[in-house]
Parts: sequence; C-alpha cells; structure tokens
Amino acid sequence: MANGTITAPRGFLAAGIGCGIKKSGKPDLGLIVCPTGAKAAAVFTTNKIVSAAVQVCKQHVKSPEIQAVVANSGCANACTGQKGLDNAVKMCAVTARQIEARPANVLVASTGIIGEQLPIGKITAGIPKAVAKLSASAEAGLDFARAIMTTDTRPKQAACKLGISGAEVTITGAIKGAGMIGPNMATTLSFITTDAAVSKPLLAAALKQAVGDSLNKLTVDGHQSTNDTCMILASGLAGNRSITSKCPRYKKFAKALAQLCDDLARQMAHDSEGATRIFKVVVKGAATTAEAARAARAVADYPLVKCAVHGGDPNWGRIICAVGSAGVKLNPERLGCKLDDVTVFSNGSPRKFDALKASRIVSQPEHTITVDLGVGKASDFCYGCDLSAEYVSINADYHT
Amino acid sequence: MANGTITAPRGFLAAGIGCGIKKSGKPDLGLIVCPTGAKAAAVFTTNKIVSAAVQVCKQHVKSPEIQAVVANSGCANACTGQKGLDNAVKMCAVTARQIEARPANVLVASTGIIGEQLPIGKITAGIPKAVAKLSASAEAGLDFARAIMTTDTRPKQAACKLGISGAEVTITGAIKGAGMIGPNMATTLSFITTDAAVSKPLLAAALKQAVGDSLNKLTVDGHQSTNDTCMILASGLAGNRSITSKCPRYKKFAKALAQLCDDLARQMAHDSEGATRIFKVVVKGAATTAEAARAARAVADYPLVKCAVHGGDPNWGRIICAVGSAGVKLNPERLGCKLDDVTVFSNGSPRKFDALKASRIVSQPEHTITVDLGVGKASDFCYGCDLSAEYVSINADYHT
Repeated sequence: MANGTITAPRGFLAAGIGCGIKKSGKPDLGLIVCPTGAKAAAVFTTNKIVSAAVQVCKQHVKSPEIQAVVANSGCANACTGQKGLDNAVKMCAVTARQIEARPANVLVASTGIIGEQLPIGKITAGIPKAVAKLSASAEAGLDFARAIMTTDTRPKQAACKLGISGAEVTITGAIKGAGMIGPNMATTLSFITTDAAVSKPLLAAALKQAVGDSLNKLTVDGHQSTNDTCMILASGLAGNRSITSKCPRYKKFAKALAQLCDDLARQMAHDSEGATRIFKVVVKGAATTAEAARAARAVADYPLVKCAVHGGDPNWGRIICAVGSAGVKLNPERLGCKLDDVTVFSNGSPRKFDALKASRIVSQPEHTITVDLGVGKASDFCYGCDLSAEYVSINADYHT
Repeated sequence: MANGTITAPRGFLAAGIGCGIKKSGKPDLGLIVCPTGAKAAAVFTTNKIVSAAVQVCKQHVKSPEIQAVVANSGCANACTGQKGLDNAVKMCAVTARQIEARPANVLVASTGIIGEQLPIGKITAGIPKAVAKLSASAEAGLDFARAIMTTDTRPKQAACKLGISGAEVTITGAIKGAGMIGPNMATTLSFITTDAAVSKPLLAAALKQAVGDSLNKLTVDGHQSTNDTCMILASGLAGNRSITSKCPRYKKFAKALAQLCDDLARQMAHDSEGATRIFKVVVKGAATTAEAARAARAVADYPLVKCAVHGGDPNWGRIICAVGSAGVKLNPERLGCKLDDVTVFSNGSPRKFDALKASRIVSQPEHTITVDLGVGKASDFCYGCDLSAEYVSINADYHT
C-alpha cells in the first residue's frame, strides 16, 4: 500500500509535532481530523483510577459524529484532580475552535508520566501549529504515530484493504506501548481509522471483539495503565453499502479489524520495554474459558517464565508452577506442557526431550507454550514477552 | 548469644554436607535431629502443584513426635510423578534407619529446579555421612543453613531467648529464599527449632499466626513455589511449665515466634534475587482487611513500582496505578499516598513535595509506602523488594 498510515482511509487528515511537553523536543502532540465527521467507538482501561482524558473521552465518544482526535505524549494527565480535568476539556475546546467543530465532537488521549499537570500553555499554543500542518499524506500519518510514542523505540502502524459490496474499504491503525500493559479492556493508546460505512453500534461491537482477541490478550507487566484507550473512527466515505446489521459484510469487516488489531498488538509486544522476543500461551483442557484465560495470563505474567524465555531456557517447571498458583481447576495427574511441538511434561510426569531443540524453540522471535489442565474442554490464550535487564533500566530511570 | 543457629535450643543436633546434587560441590544436604522427639507443626504452599516432599511431609507432620528433618537443595523434586514420590519416601526411610526412628517420624523438604528427578543414589549415600557429622555446635547449625541455599547469597538465621515460667526458652530459625516468593501460606523453606514445652495444637496455632504476619506478607515475584514449607520443632526440654492453653505464657511464646519469623522474612527479602532494598506497603482506609491486603500486594508486586524503588525514584503515579487496578473499593477523590512521612498525593490531587527528600527516602535500605483508599477503616501491609537487572540475569541463566 502506498500509504500505510492512518491517513490512508478516505476522509482523514493528520499531523504530529513537538510542542515542548517532552524536554527532548521530540514529537508529543498529534491530531487526527475527519472534516466530514466520523462514527466513533472506543474501549477504555478498567483501572479504577482513570486519566482526565479518559473521563472526557468517555463522554465525547457518545456524540453521533467525531471530527477530531487530539493526543499528547510526555504527560498522562492522570491523578491530577480538577485541574487535570479542566485541562483535558481545554484541549478539546481549543482543537474544536481551530477546526470549527463543537468540543463534544473532539476525542482526547494522553500518555506519559502519571501525577504531573499538563503544560497546558504549550499544548494550546501547539494545537494551531498542528492544525496548520494537517495533511492526508503518509508523512502526516507517520508524524502522528511518532507523536504518541513514549518509551517505544519505533512508530507502530498497520493497514489493510478489503472489498465490501464492490467498494474498497481501508482500515489503518497506529499504536503506542510500551509498559503498564495488562489485558483487561483496552491496552495502551491505539487509534484506528477506516473509511467503511458502518453504523455506530456495529462499529463499537466490532471494535470490542477485535480488542478482546488481540490487545486484551497481551500482557507485558500485568498492569493496565490509567490511560489505556483504543478508538476507531469511520468516515463512511469508501462507498460501500452501509453495514447496519450483523450480516456477512459486517463479519468481513469485523474479521479484518480483528486481524489489524492482532497485528498492532504483536508489534507492541515486540517493542515493549526491553523485550527481545514474545510468546503465546495457549491453555486448553480447562473447566471454563475464564479459567483458561486466567491460567494463560498467570504464565505470561510470571517473572521467572519471562526471564527463562529471555535466556532461551526451556524451563517448563516454572510454567507448571505458575499454572499451579493461578487458582484454577486442574488435574495434577493429567497435566501436560508443550513448547511448540515438543512435549516436555505429560500426565503429571516429565518427558525426555531434545534440550537443544527445545532451547532453539524458546529462542525464536515467537513461540507457543501449550498447557493442558486435564479437566475440561475450554481453552484460551495470551501473548507475553520476555523480561530483560533493559526493562529494569528503562523503568528505574524514567522519572527523575 | 554464643550459638545463634538452629542447634541452640536444647535437644537439637544438625549437619550440612555436599552430597553431589549441586554440580558446584556446594552443601546440598541438611539434617536436623531431635533424639528425644519433638512436637512439630508446619505450613505449606497453597500452589495446586506441590512437590513430592510436601506431599510426604503433610502426612508425617501429623505424627505425635518428630525425630528428624532431612532437606536437600539443588533439586525441588516437584512435577516428578510417582518416581519423585517414591524418592521422597526413600529419603525419610533411609534417614529413619540411620537414627533408629520410624519413617513417619521424619520430615522432608526439597528446593531447587522443578521437573528433574532427584539423584537419589547420591542422597542415600550422603545421609549416613551427614548423620556421622551430627553435632549441637554452632558450626553444625550454620552448615545446615548453608545446605538449604539455592540462589541465596548468604545463610539466613535468627535466634531469640525468652523467659517462660522461670525457664529460659530459646527459639531459632534458618530460612532460604530467594525467588518464587508470594505471600500465600508458607513461603520458601524455613526451619524453626525451640526447646519450649508446648502442646502440638498450640505450636501449630502460634506458627500459623506468626507466618501469616511475616513470611506471608512478603512478595518478591508474586508466586509461591511448589515446595514452600515452614516447619517448627519443639523439643520441650527448656523446663518451662508446658503451654497447653492460650494463656499469657502462650501469648509470650507466640509473640517471640512472630518476631523471629518477621526477622527471617525481612532477611529473606533483603537477600532475594538481585534485591538491593526492600519496602513496606501499608494500605489503610480500606473497606475490608482482605481488600487492604490485596491492594498492598498489588503495589509490592508491580514491576514498575519495583523498578522505581530500584532507581531511588519517588514515582508515586505507579503506586496509584497499581492500586487502581487491584480491583478494590476506593474513592478517587479521597485517595492519598505517602512515602515515609512525605505526602505526595492527597484527596485525589498531587501535592508539592521536596523531590530530593523523597528520593532519599526511596533510596533507603527500607522505606514505607502508605496508601489511603479513603473508603473505610481496614488496613493491612505487605513487604516487597526492588527489581534489578541482577534478578533477570540470575533467572535467565539458572537452568541450562
């Protein structure tokens, strides 16, 4: 695709600039504008402490049409009390004034350090500058993807095209990580644009399902932040017959959106703080899907498993230990574990295996750990990443 | 105290030797013997997968009298099926034969790598050698403390004396860490000896309470192992009037035991894998004690908080983020946070504070994080330690 950024779908402009929130001078303010108005949906963190941006965004996303998204990095505007809330409202108001929209038609997102007030003067001065740079070019889309980065090492984007009722529909997304990632409702900030014509309730349904199977299946350090938001804007300009029921057209759109979210989630995992490889944990033979999900997450979150993966070490005992303390029903005498296709443990006893081959499997950029709990037929999965010394140094030195 | 090891109370002999389980040749087999027989009690891991030693020990601890404890490091004998169980039984049988006791009067504990079978020939050959070295000397007690070490950097012991009904009672303990530590029933292996005369049910009650307030309040990486065991042996030779009810004598004994366990727990935290400092999380203003405990543990387990402590960084936003995702009742408008005596957040808003002073607080060997949830009157606490690059390298290179 010539343009694989969020400006690729018809009807979207974007910009990303540095307005001075980050001391480094790096890009920290991003804008997406849909002049003709877009249907929008979003999923948010389930953390009980939510950022000012999330509080405002939860209200504004109910508007029938959204015309802009304003996002900043470098400051999360979370735990900032009434002043923080006033600043989030102001970001929407200033953006709205610039593009001649109503504040309720503007979504807002923030990411960065928690507990500090936004340098609101820098942001309100930056918004007109960003508006002046709005463009439908690939460069503008990339600028946006860069403006939302914090400890990310690279901008992360995904794009796909599909045919719906004879029209070409485009879906694109930009995402930022890279710490505080736990699978419970939306994870981190992600922005998806599409030109599909689709009703607001179905857009919301497709997004919820796509996030549930991708971003919400990813754990880096087991915690969701105060700011996690995933939003989608649909301009409806592709010319497809509008999707207004759960018909085959909806299913096609929902499937493409799910694949895009999976792509974004895995890119984020690979770029998560200090990560050198990722892994998928599949738990089967569980009593319920919820128990399978809990066990998978327990394995993916367990520091000793993450360290073993970092060391390319097929240390399956730690996997079993994590499963045992996950609080799920299991049969110790039928319990089993595989690393890709190598069985290391079955029916509660260790199996002889080729240690070199197993080590090679664990050292791949991605591998799959499969655990059979031996009690039922339910299964679920989770993505995790390794834990490196780099993660520690990034997070020991972030603040002061 | 001249002898501050587990051989200090009257009636105990100990030994620790290297029998060849560890390739390094370091001590890996320990024995405690009480020829006159001791009342015993123990608490075990609540992990659903338990080691063979824990399975056997759970049965044997029901015996009215215990005459020996045999413990090995270097191999956990967990996830080892029937063969592992047979080996744990054999360790007891061989020890029993050597000291002319019954196998049911011998307790057993193992620690080390999960999923490998014990080199049982080396252990059965080692037991007579350890028996030959049994002694009531401080050196023998220290040898035992060394024989149970895995990634611990130093032997960890504690001792205290107290007067009960005119008699001098001694309580001593040895503990090993240092990874897979989560507060849920007993944590890691710990062995406590005392010469107090105390009934078996009251010994069990005092141990359960002491562990609940100390070892179970400690989290290093949020996971309990398959082998966690804390056991106490009471020889009854101190000459005190026997403790047979929850009288003042019991309370004095239980308090001393609780202090000893707290001492052991904190030593273990300081020596946990890669740790450079520890911290206490106090959560107050909670709806229930269970919610206070859950929130405290969420903070102590959160990798970003642990990294911030490692960096001496008063990054309280991460503390609030962890509390918000702990799934407990809280009032965002009354939420507060202190680092020792410095208030950094109150009534849901950030407070100006002396950053240098706060950084100095976080950089201490121990500091206290206090969080007020602002909804009730319940409180609880938890100990945690920092997360260092050292933790990663220890655990990435442990197995292969």
